[in-house]
Amino acid sequence: MNELDFIAALRALANSESARGLADDAAVLKLGNETLVLTKDMMVESVHWPREQSLADVAWKLVAVNLSDLAAKGAEPLGVLLGYSLGANDAAFLKGLEAALIAFDVPLLGGDTVKSDGPSTFSLTALGRATHIPVPSRSGAQPGDGVFLCGAIGGAMMGFEALTQGGDADTAPFTRPAPLLVQGRALAPHVSAMMDVSDGLLLDAWRMAEASSVSFSLDSAAVPLAAPETRRADALRWGDDYALLFTAPDGTDLPIDAARIGAVAQRGAAPVILDGTAVSDSDKLGYRH
Amino acid sequence: MNELDFIAALRALANSESARGLADDAAVLKLGNETLVLTKDMMVESVHWPREQSLADVAWKLVAVNLSDLAAKGAEPLGVLLGYSLGANDAAFLKGLEAALIAFDVPLLGGDTVKSDGPSTFSLTALGRATHIPVPSRSGAQPGDGVFLCGAIGGAMMGFEALTQGGDADTAPFTRPAPLLVQGRALAPHVSAMMDVSDGLLLDAWRMAEASSVSFSLDSAAVPLAAPETRRADALRWGDDYALLFTAPDGTDLPIDAARIGAVAQRGAAPVILDGTAVSDSDKLGYRH
Repeated sequence: MNELDFIAALRALANSESARGLADDAAVLKLGNETLVLTKDMMVESVHWPREQSLADVAWKLVAVNLSDLAAKGAEPLGVLLGYSLGANDAAFLKGLEAALIAFDVPLLGGDTVKSDGPSTFSLTALGRATHIPVPSRSGAQPGDGVFLCGAIGGAMMGFEALTQGGDADTAPFTRPAPLLVQGRALAPHVSAMMDVSDGLLLDAWRMAEASSVSFSLDSAAVPLAAPETRRADALRWGDDYALLFTAPDGTDLPIDAARIGAVAQRGAAPVILDGTAVSDSDKLGYRH
Repeated sequence: MNELDFIAALRALANSESARGLADDAAVLKLGNETLVLTKDMMVESVHWPREQSLADVAWKLVAVNLSDLAAKGAEPLGVLLGYSLGANDAAFLKGLEAALIAFDVPLLGGDTVKSDGPSTFSLTALGRATHIPVPSRSGAQPGDGVFLCGAIGGAMMGFEALTQGGDADTAPFTRPAPLLVQGRALAPHVSAMMDVSDGLLLDAWRMAEASSVSFSLDSAAVPLAAPETRRADALRWGDDYALLFTAPDGTDLPIDAARIGAVAQRGAAPVILDGTAVSDSDKLGYRH
């Protein structure tokens, strides 16, 4: 079955509110006087990481990508649960897992291990508590809002290239990304929509505009870059940076630094207008997995 | 790395309370005025299900085994998150998933899908709220308690054999097990220890006795059987029945039917004494995976 068809079928099984959690976002659940935020990501060898990469980095990333989903919801992490298929480099995985749990101050709550002869498959569930209600979603962008980016993009691309092709660039932005948890919590009360940039800025902006039924007019030159200027076009389409993309009414007194990279308009011909040109096809905008 | 070594290392990463959730139990987390119970199970093709089995049944079982972990904690299910690797029979999986979600009245909250060329790997996280504090654990059995079983064992064994070798036995106890959620909630206020029997009654009794630092003296003839009497010895060692094993002070007025299958004693030579004989090696007591 086609992945999008499968996700659509899953959404049909879930109610419209919780279905936002399917495939690429977080689920939100009210419980007593608290609101829970839940994320789940799977990673498969050769699909989600190159064989050259240390399993310590993979473990770190598995934690970081889930916490980045919590960051985009302004949630405080409560803990993670690990699903782990035992393999050749378990000690390295444990080392990276421990480093990430310490770095992000999040406890390992439980999990499950399995034996498998196939490619290593890891799964992580992260649980957080919302610090601001309503919990930011990707569907709240309003015409008249500004579009903002907290963090820079392109660092993961440069790191990936250094890792796989050699070179001087720092590999850490790709191998050891840091979720913007503090920033997400600070921003949550001020944003109209927020998500983390995991699959490429342009593709994720497209998704947010689609979810909000608006158009984003983006100024590519305004996007903060962690790569050489010559690589700007690539950086806009590369994922794995985990910056926070958000919208907020212009004039909002934001509590942290963020770059204004565009404006929200009534829905026009395309969800994304890049430097004045309507982008009518999302296929080339980023990385899908 | 050896699976037990890996789990031990994971436990070292977690604190002692939450570490109970690692590998074969549920995690317990206080949040505001509620207490959360979290479980996570992974299933891998050929390891956790035979190729003959329909993916609809696998989906059902993935939900059921996690809800059974919640049942053993007396928890009310709040929802599940799915990790799914796309493969050949996605439509069948969806059908079984939908049937289980309806049967157990639990919402799908979110999840993640991945593409993989290897064996199908599925992961499910179930989230519940505790209905009784303290949440039953496997470590609370006290000398003088009775050992009880709610539900019968052997049905999954008979169903598995019918599925793989043919025959007249009902396959449903193996393919479509039902977690004892209502029973677990009713029992939670009355038990000193509780767990679900997923890997075989004798092995799970051994684990509970070990966790509680006591010995269980078990009367095999008293165990309720869903298999021919000639298969009693096998049924005691077969898993997948998801009955509830618990201990409670003798004389407790239990709210539901349960069979008294033994007694808890001070820790003696072995964790399990079966029909008067100390069992000194857990290797042949059940199914490990």
